[in-house]
Amino acid sequence: MTAQETVSDIRVRYAETDQMGVVYHANYLIWCEIGRTDFIRSRGMSYADMERQGFLLAVTEVTMRLHASARYDDLVRVTTRLVSVRSRAVEFAYEITRPDTGASIASVGTTLVSVSPEGRPVTLPAGIRALLDRGPLVA
Amino acid sequence: MTAQETVSDIRVRYAETDQMGVVYHANYLIWCEIGRTDFIRSRGMSYADMERQGFLLAVTEVTMRLHASARYDDLVRVTTRLVSVRSRAVEFAYEITRPDTGASIASVGTTLVSVSPEGRPVTLPAGIRALLDRGPLVA
Amino acid sequence: MTAQETVSDIRVRYAETDQMGVVYHANYLIWCEIGRTDFIRSRGMSYADMERQGFLLAVTEVTMRLHASARYDDLVRVTTRLVSVRSRAVEFAYEITRPDTGASIASVGTTLVSVSPEGRPVTLPAGIRALLDRGPLVA
Amino acid sequence: MTAQETVSDIRVRYAETDQMGVVYHANYLIWCEIGRTDFIRSRGMSYADMERQGFLLAVTEVTMRLHASARYDDLVRVTTRLVSVRSRAVEFAYEITRPDTGASIASVGTTLVSVSPEGRPVTLPAGIRALLDRGPLVA
Repeated sequence: MTAQETVSDIRVRYAETDQMGVVYHANYLIWCEIGRTDFIRSRGMSYADMERQGFLLAVTEVTMRLHASARYDDLVRVTTRLVSVRSRAVEFAYEITRPDTGASIASVGTTLVSVSPEGRPVTLPAGIRALLDRGPLVA
Repeated sequence: MTAQETVSDIRVRYAETDQMGVVYHANYLIWCEIGRTDFIRSRGMSYADMERQGFLLAVTEVTMRLHASARYDDLVRVTTRLVSVRSRAVEFAYEITRPDTGASIASVGTTLVSVSPEGRPVTLPAGIRALLDRGPLVA
Repeated sequence: MTAQETVSDIRVRYAETDQMGVVYHANYLIWCEIGRTDFIRSRGMSYADMERQGFLLAVTEVTMRLHASARYDDLVRVTTRLVSVRSRAVEFAYEITRPDTGASIASVGTTLVSVSPEGRPVTLPAGIRALLDRGPLVA
Repeated sequence: MTAQETVSDIRVRYAETDQMGVVYHANYLIWCEIGRTDFIRSRGMSYADMERQGFLLAVTEVTMRLHASARYDDLVRVTTRLVSVRSRAVEFAYEITRPDTGASIASVGTTLVSVSPEGRPVTLPAGIRALLDRGPLVA
């Protein structure tokens, strides 16, 4: 983890497994959303507050590569990195790994656009862009 | 099925199974919500419209008994019945069965209260109560 | 929390909300499953191990009362209590609250029966019943 | 729709929405899985049977572009197309649209590898590959 990354540790839920005995793949996107929430919080904002201020981030692109399976009760780690922040779009990359061995489970990328509560594209305020881009708060 | 019931047939999704090889129990509540949506539609309304008019139905009580398991790709049937409609609460009962054999999978009951978009209790308009209570539209 | 209870703190995920702006009610059952997993772990077992030994706990009854709403990014607490353990059934009760104020969000009860991997009822070994019933391990 | 495609119509569930008022993006992957199940069925097989014969298809790559939002109670259409079938991998493409207007909601691609119930890569039998590749059964 560098200063530009945040780490979210997640315990796999029974509900996240499927009859293959492993985590159903769509759940990785939910874990990435947790990583994103934690990343934004590390910058001194909260995504819940961003929404209350009228700036929603809607996912528009996803790429996902799955390298290995996660299982019920496993501890998994989402390492979230900001790739870019532009006036109307933010790009994140995520590595999902096993914290004990470092083995990779999945690599995910998402692009999000900022929209109003009515779903119209809006420009992210310079203040929010600067916060996202500046590195984490030091306690 | 009597005139007071509606039937919703649902194909079990892979995502709804868990590592036990059967449907994860929380999904039954989602199927009941489909049954509720279909029931309201059979009365000539749509729940989506009810919400747009400011009347949201929030679940406040659930009872559920599971008698058997459903599996991936099974066809299951939700039979939805209105138990009661009062000024601020609506009660539904659901039977989840196998349509081929009639075997019971689960019996569920839910109570819902009508709330405003802000979450405050509101009285259901007499028109909506009458529609729910009157029996299905005849085509 | 007494010695007979365990506590699981959970951050509400965006994916758990619905268009009412609050947590979709079926997710409470998933949180209770997390509470159950943590309770069993506090007794020095893991539910994942129980399953590997051939003892699966399948939910057969649920009662749920919802008193208030939880929202995205809220911290919620599940307090899990063993109600009874019998030869083939285990009963748990859960209180979902806000840890900061203690306000109640939901009260849930579940009955689970022990089944084999093939879904047949099996008697819980005396060792597992004793572990569940004896109180938490003291570190 | 060409002979090489299948169509699955899906009614959006309340549980699939989030507090943005639209479908949570991870659910699109679940809809694609429904499309895949229907595609395989159109070839005279069932994916449930494939699994019972020991051939599981595990998702290893996803690309997804979201063009518009779907909302509660909307009817959406998943058009599923086989892109390629090789000895150990199958590639599908999906278009999610509104059936009434044809407007595009999302474009998704998935690569799946064939694995044994224990998760080891296995070669797809020639019979299964031929079935997938030959075009739909004519009734």
